[in-house]
Amino acid sequence: MAGSTLGTNFKITTWGESHGKALGAVIDGCPAGLPLCEKDIQIYLDRRKPGQSNISTPRKEADQVEILSGVFEGKTTGTPISLIIPNTSQKSSDYSEIASYYRPGHADYTFDAKYGFRDYTGGGRSSGRETAGRVAAGAVAIKILKELGITVTAYTRSIGPVTIDDSHFDKSAIYTTATCMPDPAADEKATAYLKECMMEKNSSGGVIECVVEGLPAGIGDPVFEKLDANLAKAVMSIGAVKAVEIGDGTLVSSAKGSENNDAFRISSEGITKKTNHAGGILGGISDGSTLLLRAHVKPTPSIFQKQETVNKNGENIEIEIKGRHDPVIVPRAVVVVEAMTALTVLDACMANMTARLDYLKDFYC
Amino acid sequence: MAGSTLGTNFKITTWGESHGKALGAVIDGCPAGLPLCEKDIQIYLDRRKPGQSNISTPRKEADQVEILSGVFEGKTTGTPISLIIPNTSQKSSDYSEIASYYRPGHADYTFDAKYGFRDYTGGGRSSGRETAGRVAAGAVAIKILKELGITVTAYTRSIGPVTIDDSHFDKSAIYTTATCMPDPAADEKATAYLKECMMEKNSSGGVIECVVEGLPAGIGDPVFEKLDANLAKAVMSIGAVKAVEIGDGTLVSSAKGSENNDAFRISSEGITKKTNHAGGILGGISDGSTLLLRAHVKPTPSIFQKQETVNKNGENIEIEIKGRHDPVIVPRAVVVVEAMTALTVLDACMANMTARLDYLKDFYC
Amino acid sequence: MAGSTLGTNFKITTWGESHGKALGAVIDGCPAGLPLCEKDIQIYLDRRKPGQSNISTPRKEADQVEILSGVFEGKTTGTPISLIIPNTSQKSSDYSEIASYYRPGHADYTFDAKYGFRDYTGGGRSSGRETAGRVAAGAVAIKILKELGITVTAYTRSIGPVTIDDSHFDKSAIYTTATCMPDPAADEKATAYLKECMMEKNSSGGVIECVVEGLPAGIGDPVFEKLDANLAKAVMSIGAVKAVEIGDGTLVSSAKGSENNDAFRISSEGITKKTNHAGGILGGISDGSTLLLRAHVKPTPSIFQKQETVNKNGENIEIEIKGRHDPVIVPRAVVVVEAMTALTVLDACMANMTARLDYLKDFYC
Amino acid sequence: MAGSTLGTNFKITTWGESHGKALGAVIDGCPAGLPLCEKDIQIYLDRRKPGQSNISTPRKEADQVEILSGVFEGKTTGTPISLIIPNTSQKSSDYSEIASYYRPGHADYTFDAKYGFRDYTGGGRSSGRETAGRVAAGAVAIKILKELGITVTAYTRSIGPVTIDDSHFDKSAIYTTATCMPDPAADEKATAYLKECMMEKNSSGGVIECVVEGLPAGIGDPVFEKLDANLAKAVMSIGAVKAVEIGDGTLVSSAKGSENNDAFRISSEGITKKTNHAGGILGGISDGSTLLLRAHVKPTPSIFQKQETVNKNGENIEIEIKGRHDPVIVPRAVVVVEAMTALTVLDACMANMTARLDYLKDFYC
Repeated sequence: MAGSTLGTNFKITTWGESHGKALGAVIDGCPAGLPLCEKDIQIYLDRRKPGQSNISTPRKEADQVEILSGVFEGKTTGTPISLIIPNTSQKSSDYSEIASYYRPGHADYTFDAKYGFRDYTGGGRSSGRETAGRVAAGAVAIKILKELGITVTAYTRSIGPVTIDDSHFDKSAIYTTATCMPDPAADEKATAYLKECMMEKNSSGGVIECVVEGLPAGIGDPVFEKLDANLAKAVMSIGAVKAVEIGDGTLVSSAKGSENNDAFRISSEGITKKTNHAGGILGGISDGSTLLLRAHVKPTPSIFQKQETVNKNGENIEIEIKGRHDPVIVPRAVVVVEAMTALTVLDACMANMTARLDYLKDFYC
Repeated sequence: MAGSTLGTNFKITTWGESHGKALGAVIDGCPAGLPLCEKDIQIYLDRRKPGQSNISTPRKEADQVEILSGVFEGKTTGTPISLIIPNTSQKSSDYSEIASYYRPGHADYTFDAKYGFRDYTGGGRSSGRETAGRVAAGAVAIKILKELGITVTAYTRSIGPVTIDDSHFDKSAIYTTATCMPDPAADEKATAYLKECMMEKNSSGGVIECVVEGLPAGIGDPVFEKLDANLAKAVMSIGAVKAVEIGDGTLVSSAKGSENNDAFRISSEGITKKTNHAGGILGGISDGSTLLLRAHVKPTPSIFQKQETVNKNGENIEIEIKGRHDPVIVPRAVVVVEAMTALTVLDACMANMTARLDYLKDFYC
Repeated sequence: MAGSTLGTNFKITTWGESHGKALGAVIDGCPAGLPLCEKDIQIYLDRRKPGQSNISTPRKEADQVEILSGVFEGKTTGTPISLIIPNTSQKSSDYSEIASYYRPGHADYTFDAKYGFRDYTGGGRSSGRETAGRVAAGAVAIKILKELGITVTAYTRSIGPVTIDDSHFDKSAIYTTATCMPDPAADEKATAYLKECMMEKNSSGGVIECVVEGLPAGIGDPVFEKLDANLAKAVMSIGAVKAVEIGDGTLVSSAKGSENNDAFRISSEGITKKTNHAGGILGGISDGSTLLLRAHVKPTPSIFQKQETVNKNGENIEIEIKGRHDPVIVPRAVVVVEAMTALTVLDACMANMTARLDYLKDFYC
Repeated sequence: MAGSTLGTNFKITTWGESHGKALGAVIDGCPAGLPLCEKDIQIYLDRRKPGQSNISTPRKEADQVEILSGVFEGKTTGTPISLIIPNTSQKSSDYSEIASYYRPGHADYTFDAKYGFRDYTGGGRSSGRETAGRVAAGAVAIKILKELGITVTAYTRSIGPVTIDDSHFDKSAIYTTATCMPDPAADEKATAYLKECMMEKNSSGGVIECVVEGLPAGIGDPVFEKLDANLAKAVMSIGAVKAVEIGDGTLVSSAKGSENNDAFRISSEGITKKTNHAGGILGGISDGSTLLLRAHVKPTPSIFQKQETVNKNGENIEIEIKGRHDPVIVPRAVVVVEAMTALTVLDACMANMTARLDYLKDFYC
């Protein structure tokens, strides 16, 4: 089946492999009239780009995006926007060895099981590089949401045992620390922890948190197209994510109703809630509070320790992976979570415009 | 937008409100030739049915399903299967009061925000009764999966602070304990805990776990249609679920790569893994191990304590909810998780049949 | 695959067989706030109902629709509207014979080829009765379009050699003549022609025309989701339709550009066209003129003459079909064309509401 | 809404404008293991390419396709295949004039009505060049179908008043005549007719016919996803097509049942039909006979005669279109019809693989 298209109204299709000629995305259904240039997208790709710190793979990729269609005289035309990001640093020769065995924690085996063979260079389509297309498309969604007064902000909540201190939350640090932590003290500790991991040829997991502010109440649909359901799908579809939480998330299972319910209150701003255990979503529909989700990201599976696995000839072997690998996936995945959240929220906002007959009458009569 | 349809090949559409005339589901894309009768479905609906224990709402609903189409001489014909479950215990008069305010933790406010008004009787479409249609459709998916050697089993992992002891796992207890815990000792403790909750007019959350056995490697698609992404959506779309975990789930964020990677080994059964931290999915595709997921369910929002909220006139008020409400959602949601998992897995299995040109050639040549 | 769901924003799913317990449709994505009762739908079903004239099958069906969900206190709630039409006149015993062979011009053989067996009673899902669900759902679409100032009108253009005279066009006659011709003189001739056909145990084809008035310019999408492409699909999906034309239709292939182009002119009503060869659609998008389409309907395949075919045992045989059959499909299909056109146009109107960033800003800012 | 994606299992997304940097298509869901290189696709693009005869626009476009992803070591991997065709002959300066008015018969006005402005260079996305992406993707579908023993062949049936003589049908002439007529005598007459048209600054319409051979019975789905319904949509979505016929097409409306029914007969090849008025489809499902469809193509709207229209300032004006334009669209659209037919048939073949439980059991057990 086709698995590289997402969204109903704002629909994206991504393509490309780690070591192919290029990666890209096609956005279909982008509203006409949005001012758009490469720079709008590049700033998001730059946040995902490898080789930017000593806790990131030294692979250098320019990750320069080019807009091939859908923009005319600086504005989107309503027709598909094709985005391309050429690959410039493919060292396919590195991969002759891994062609012959299955790396633990990777999709090598499952791709073979599904398709009969695989593009083994750099993980092919299962590489984290696949997310470049998502980020490029997400940048356009983020720009549209901003025009509607809605902002999406993701950051690193924890790396291994190191968690940010909410009382020291410093948003600007997201964009300046190598860990993307909004807390410079935590960033320092996490960096030290990662260096330890690297010394022992190991890697670390972590948590990414994402908040959406300015989202009006009423976005999302009942039943299967709940806003949280689509967010869970969007975020879980990012390679290394193994759990998704909305609001209090896993805490709800040990909570009591009196602790978990958010009281409604009326104020000068209209109906608000005293607390936000729900994370801004009730019954699958936004409630006007800050939307909050968390993604749990597994440690980079490419570690340099000796590991057991199976080779092509069906023999048990021991391997030591070589090459260029991040000791932690989290910092580079922050902008991916931001992109996936924005794509989901925008699609839901567009769907919501036909929720009432009055909306149709206002539009057409 | 339309939000009540799920699936691509095995597509279901559910409909119905808590206090309407009936609830139902239409299954479109069910393969022809499956022996099917009402009883096949009824046994699953009976597991979801209210009023079966003293930790469940006393509302009595027969929840009798009828097959209206798509079955001829005892077998599915390949055309849509329409399933209907009449509502028999609507006491709409109960709801005159809640029409006037927003219950905390419920979707009353968000439905109003979206649609301008709402069916306030029993929560309308946002009621847990909505899941009856899912369970009915899921029963058909489960039956097909069984024919393929794939079984789906969900159960209660925890209620409030009480968790099952895996070393005492007793599958049969799932179907005999009121909590659906596969551990009679834990069931006893959980029941006692729930009685406490009820005495203090409170409610409890809990965790549902679901395993899929017999699933071959290769099911699921890369990128957006990852098997875990679709499972996350399917499970998060169940009313009270606030977090979804695959395999080790939230634990991965504090793990190291050496702890989280599963080594591949060759054995008489082919390629297997020494451990299963991944929960049976790598790169969005099943790896042949047991698939494992967990859903964190919030406490029933309808509690009988005094709560703050806002009424229709925009005034802050205090309310005390009355009526018939479960002190915990978990036991009745177990079969819903099972249904949603089965629907997702079956749809992915069907999609997988076109993954290779050789499959098409085997079929057509 | 699933084939009984249509539409993106206004999505319908139909179900039911000719001789099953009932037929029905689920509408998902109907905007909230539309006043709706059974009568709104019944008037359309009554136009499709059999047994109303001597050129229609004598089978009597009440075709009484019931709304099971999605309407609260007389208005649509935005959640799925489930419509059910019980079958009351199933004479399954009639069909023992046709179970054993393939009727020429019917789908008996192709259903067997696809599914391995078939519900042979009255054609099962391939029966014209399947369209009852379409008409019920279409009635709701028509009602919404009316609220937006858009009307859809279908009628019989020709039966066999008898064509209406446009200069005598009388709209009211659509609803009073047995042929649904807007020209009583043509109706008389066509009725006489059909009686001849019946006398020679034969049947006749015909043409249905449909016009949409009040449709603003800008509806429909470029490329694959062109308004005319979706109309062609919707209308061709009606059982007996073998050709679909838009505007001048087949005439364009023998025309010259100077004859076929419609000149634009400015008037007090804005931009209009001097002619309408295009039938109201340019580049897949409505141009503000009257939308016009035609469906060519084949003669009823059930004729009482001797016919050659093959039986279950793979033998060449001769058959004489018995039972109750219309000598012409056209008059009862008129309202089906109307329904399919309305469903398509409404879905396109809803999609169009997100075409420009300004529309989103008007809605959300 | 998004309108540039087609298909469920074999899904394509096209992008690009007449005078943008490039055009392209992404194929998602292509089965793994198909040998594929640029040349496989190029031969189809070359058939669509302009500037190849004196009845085609003199615009020169190399229309060289490049595969950017989804192919590894010469075979498709099952992941998205990104195809790009750079534009090399954009003379945007030509178009300063037409920016100021609406060309009759073109989508200039409707794009403005929809999006508020348009890319006026060469028609932007509404240009016939948009079909390059369809042809590129269709070439892959055609290659797969060939592997399954299914061939798709389109050709010109008529241009203006000149129709091919079926008794002189010469398949090879499709690829050697400038008109793509499988009848050299008709080609000669049609060419003469087109020269007349050009002399009088006019253009001509025509008919494209397409046959699918080797298609087994059972392909297509009942109700909305009928094979003929999807073919009608696919073919009507080609810019200038105004009518689509299946089998006898428009003739059925004046036929009698005894003339239109195809008798089934048993032979050494199994169940066949004595005639094929149905064009190979009964009840929306293929019947094993040759599938036959026809598309009626309007005359090129860009003619060099004086025409009336409206300009940007809302004034009635007279225009004379300049530039490079084909006097007839038909010959270059032949391969587009072939592509759209192949895409639709392949998608239906893939969908059909899950029609029976036995198919699933054969695959998984």
